[in-house]
Formats: sequence, structure tokens, C-alpha cells
Amino acid sequence: MQQVREELPDWRGGGVSVMERGHREDDFLRCAHEAEADLRALMEIPDDYHVLFLHGGAQLQFAAVPMNLAAGQSLTADYVNSGHWAALAMAEARRYLTVNECATVADAGAVAMPEEGAWRRGGDAGYLHYTPNETISGLEFHRVPDAGDATLVADMSSVILSRRFAVRRFGLIYAGAQKNIGPAGLAVVIVRRDLAARAAAAGAVPRVMNYAAQAAAGSMVNTPPVFAWYVAGLVLRWLRKNGGVAAMEKQNAEKSSVLYNCIDNSGGFYRNRVAAAWRSRMNIPFTLAAPQLEEAFLAAAAAAGLAGLRGHRAAGGLRASLYNAVPPAGVLQLTEFMNHFRQTRG
Amino acid sequence: MQQVREELPDWRGGGVSVMERGHREDDFLRCAHEAEADLRALMEIPDDYHVLFLHGGAQLQFAAVPMNLAAGQSLTADYVNSGHWAALAMAEARRYLTVNECATVADAGAVAMPEEGAWRRGGDAGYLHYTPNETISGLEFHRVPDAGDATLVADMSSVILSRRFAVRRFGLIYAGAQKNIGPAGLAVVIVRRDLAARAAAAGAVPRVMNYAAQAAAGSMVNTPPVFAWYVAGLVLRWLRKNGGVAAMEKQNAEKSSVLYNCIDNSGGFYRNRVAAAWRSRMNIPFTLAAPQLEEAFLAAAAAAGLAGLRGHRAAGGLRASLYNAVPPAGVLQLTEFMNHFRQTRG
Repeated sequence: MQQVREELPDWRGGGVSVMERGHREDDFLRCAHEAEADLRALMEIPDDYHVLFLHGGAQLQFAAVPMNLAAGQSLTADYVNSGHWAALAMAEARRYLTVNECATVADAGAVAMPEEGAWRRGGDAGYLHYTPNETISGLEFHRVPDAGDATLVADMSSVILSRRFAVRRFGLIYAGAQKNIGPAGLAVVIVRRDLAARAAAAGAVPRVMNYAAQAAAGSMVNTPPVFAWYVAGLVLRWLRKNGGVAAMEKQNAEKSSVLYNCIDNSGGFYRNRVAAAWRSRMNIPFTLAAPQLEEAFLAAAAAAGLAGLRGHRAAGGLRASLYNAVPPAGVLQLTEFMNHFRQTRG
Repeated sequence: MQQVREELPDWRGGGVSVMERGHREDDFLRCAHEAEADLRALMEIPDDYHVLFLHGGAQLQFAAVPMNLAAGQSLTADYVNSGHWAALAMAEARRYLTVNECATVADAGAVAMPEEGAWRRGGDAGYLHYTPNETISGLEFHRVPDAGDATLVADMSSVILSRRFAVRRFGLIYAGAQKNIGPAGLAVVIVRRDLAARAAAAGAVPRVMNYAAQAAAGSMVNTPPVFAWYVAGLVLRWLRKNGGVAAMEKQNAEKSSVLYNCIDNSGGFYRNRVAAAWRSRMNIPFTLAAPQLEEAFLAAAAAAGLAGLRGHRAAGGLRASLYNAVPPAGVLQLTEFMNHFRQTRG
């Protein structure tokens, strides 16, 4: 943010802000290419994958993925229904192809997914779609599913750059930028070239959503979200200089472990309902044994400088989101506050 | 830009930038509502029109308009082909409905549109689409066409807020934000409520592009482009405090007139090829009688602090864009430079 502020009046010596510069000027093209190169380096993206920086966030991709991959043909796709975001992705996909809900999140005492062996996979599915992390319920897949002959597609909005993924295992990865990359209004799509090429024949896909067209145009079929791309570039550069994804992975494991320990050692005062094997390192929802204390908890937290702890309006309760931008010290401050609140109000 | 910079480290007392704030927090909702209220006031938008702030720029609307208005039914629409942008809008529309190209820009000595009486309107057209200003050829419609029984739809990307329009004459107005409103990555859609409601039944429209769904969700079906919306809000507020659209209209007429006079009084050294009745006040392309001087012109202009004068790569030549953000003094500086260049190099 400091760099954004310093560069705002005069970006790269042009006398105006990056927002006021043309997206085809050399300075912005260089900035755009640097962001792509940094993302490729951070995620070790193979050369036979396109990296696209697109308008619209992940939810537009919920539609773009089936539109591009079905490419006007009749297609069935397997969708893993892990919760809120997966269900939204499925609802969009149903507009464009046949969705086979091959696995559904269960809540028998604890929130968990069925084991992969029990998934009802469609034999003819064109792709398998899953959501590695559900931000509202706080459920995360710690293993990448085996898609078999199908193409694996993942909505990585809330886990991209938070841990290492072998990109080669995926045909298509997409992510809204606003969690671990940059500001809202930008989606990153990493798509194997042969899959993107399939979209060239997809007549009903809006051109700015067409992966083949955007790949051919360097993500500039239309004016891209220049400012969001620029800020994303700063974040990616910072990440490379600070240990890359491996360092984030280690830090995120430690951060989440500190908070889960605080919850699990609270004698039931705090409670997280996700089965241990499926607990998210990014989003940790919890409830109070005494729900009537929730508002007092939030008020005391805000007074201590801890904001953003209210659970998603679809779930209620409380939630801590520990994205890359949250430093370990912030989690320590949170757990100290939680312990103190428990001791005084428990 | 100064205000953006000042507010970046601590927006509305939250201790972080607007980019880092949740889009459902009260502060951002207030900012979003203020932007809508300011736009409604500036354009005198009647209450039976929705105002939507959407992802993706105008080109996504090239597809969204026919997808929403056809709503899965068979539909014919009249499109006025005035040039580059109109042609792109038509190409997108053809994916979703039957396009009747009812008028085509002509270039017999000068660039001009056929008179409205000669347009080949389809009797059963669901809507009439036109592009009030073509930024590349520099052609502008100074009168709003009479759509008759059809709904009038306009791509106002490069003229919104540059002059007054009677919104009531339109069923749907859309505009990419990056010309007269704010940063790239935001589109404004002003749509009559009955037309938006039609989209509720449109099964193949991605939900974030569906006008009915976005209207019901206050443009927040998904995380909106928060930063672009915020900057747009600052521009709209500034515009209200500085005379509104009427003041801009007057200033833009004067600015363009100064530049056209400079061109027309150059004894043929500079030339604009658009017929007088169709000349744009926003984008003024011109050529040099001696095209080999173009690079020298651009270099001398850049040295004089005048950037952005290269013509669009689709057209070549030179071009001055006089959007709202360009002050009258900037145009005077430009014409002084042009006169001096002509006197020394002519």
C-alpha cells in the first residue's frame, strides 16, 4: 500500500497515475508481463499453460469455465459439492452443461467430505471441478483429487499462493484476486493451451470471456482492469522477494495451527465444527458455547483493534480469515485476545 | 488523484485502504450508494431505472445486452454500424440474436452516417442499438435517434457525462467507466426496470451479467470492483460540485471547437475527415498533409508535455481525446503547439 501511495501521482515517470495510463503503453505492458512472469515463477507454471488476467472475479468464471470447456457441445462434468462456493459454481455450470454432483459435504457431528473412493464419478465427465477451500464453512482439501481421465478444474480463489500446488495436475485453475493476490475485480486463469484452444470454436461465449481469444490478445481483448493488475503485480513481486509460496505455506500452516490450538484448548468455550482432516488454514469459523456472548466478543475484539471477525452472513457465528496478508503476529494477538476473553467471560 | 492518495492508508478511519475493506461493510455500502445517488442526480435518471455498477467494461456488455434483452427468446435487433465499436457490439450480438445492420457509416469524401430517414429499420426489431460516439474515427451522433416502438439502447462509454441526455428516451444505457467516470474495470448500466425484469427468465446469462439478479443484489451478486467504484464515486462527486453535466457540455463544446478551428484554419496542414455535422467533441483524429512529419510531430509534442496524441492503432494518424478530465487550458496548449509546429515545419 505504501508503494501504491508513493507511485500514485507519478507512475514510472509518466507524470500521472497508473490508472490514467493507456493499457497498451509500453510501461503498462511491461508491468503486466512482469506480473505474469512472477506468477509463473511463484507457481512453477509450465510453458504449455496460458496465464490470463481477466475482468470479473471468480463468479464470472463459474460460467466461463463450462462455457469454454463445453464449447457448444453437449458435455457432462463432475462437480464436488463442498459447500457454498462449490454450490454456486454448480448452479452456473447447469446453465451450460449437465452437472453430476459426485460428492457432497456431510455434517454428521463434524463437517467433512466423503473419502475420494466413495465419490460417484460420472464415467463420461469432461472435467472434474472442485473448490480446494470453502471460505464460509472453513473446509479445505489438503490433497489434490485424482481426476483420472477427466480434466481437473479448481476454483483456487481462497488458496492460490497460500500453499504449493503441482499445476501440471490441473487442466484449469482460476481464482478471484481479492484474497491472496490483489484488489477485487480481477480473476487469474491458468489454463492448459489445448483446453483454451477448444474454446476458439465456442460461439456463445462472450469474447472477453473466451480463453482462446484472451490468450491470443495477451488478456487485452478489451481494456483490462489496469489498476488491479498493477497492484497484483506488486503483491506477486513482494511474494517472490519474501520466500515465495513455500514460505507462505509454512507460515500459513503455523498461523492456523496456533488458532486451532487456541480453540481446541478452550475447554469448549470456542468450537470449530470441521473434522480435523478437513480444516482450512485460510478461514477458521468458530462459535461460542454461549452464543449470547458473540456481540460482546466482537465489540471487545474491535476495541482491541481486531476487525473482520464476524462470520459470513450465510453462516453466522465468528470467523478468522488468515490469508497471506495476515502476519503471524496478528494471529498471536488474536489468540491472546481470545484467551483473555475466555478467562474473563468464560 | 490527490484524494485517492490521501485516503489510501486510512479510508474513512478504518486504518486500511478501501481496497482492503469488505464490500459489505457499512462504509463501502455508503460510498457505493453515494456514487449511485450522484450519478442519478447528474443524469436525472428516473426512479423506474436501475443503476448498476458491474465488472468488465463495455465489451462484456456487448454480449450482456443481447443476452439479457433476448432472454432466451428468438429476437431481431437493429444495430447502427457507425464504426469500430459499433461493429464489435454487432459481432457480439450475433452470438445471441439476429442482427439487422440498419445503417452503415459512409466515407464519400467525408466520414458521415446516412440520415435517419434512410435507415433500413427492421419492423420487428426488439431494440435499436447505437454508439453515440466512435472514439477511433471521431464520429458523434449529436441527436438521439428516434427508435419508434423499439427500445433504444446506447453504448455511452465515451460520451456519458460529457453532455446531457434525456435518459427517458432510452431503455438501456451502458458505459465502460474508463473515459469519463473512473478507472478501467467497471461498467455502468442504466436500465429501465421492466427491461431488467425480462432478464430474470434468461437462463443462459451468467448470474453476474444478469441485470435482474444484479439489480436485486444492489450490483453485489459477487464482490464488486471496489476500488474502481470508489474512484468513480469521487469523480461523480467532483462533477456535481463543479457544475454537473451542463457545465461539462458547455466546456466540451468549447474545447472541441478550439481544436477544430485550429485544424480547419491550418490551410490543409492538418486535416480531419469527418463531416461537420458528425464531428465528435470527445475524440478528434487528424492527419498531416505531410504524413512523414507524424513522428516528428509526436516527438515534439511529447517534449512539450503533450502525450497520448498517437492515433488508435486501427486507424493510424494522430488523435486528441478531450474527455471531461482534459481542462480547456490543455486544449489551448495543444493548439498553440500545433500552430507553432505548422509555422516552423509547414
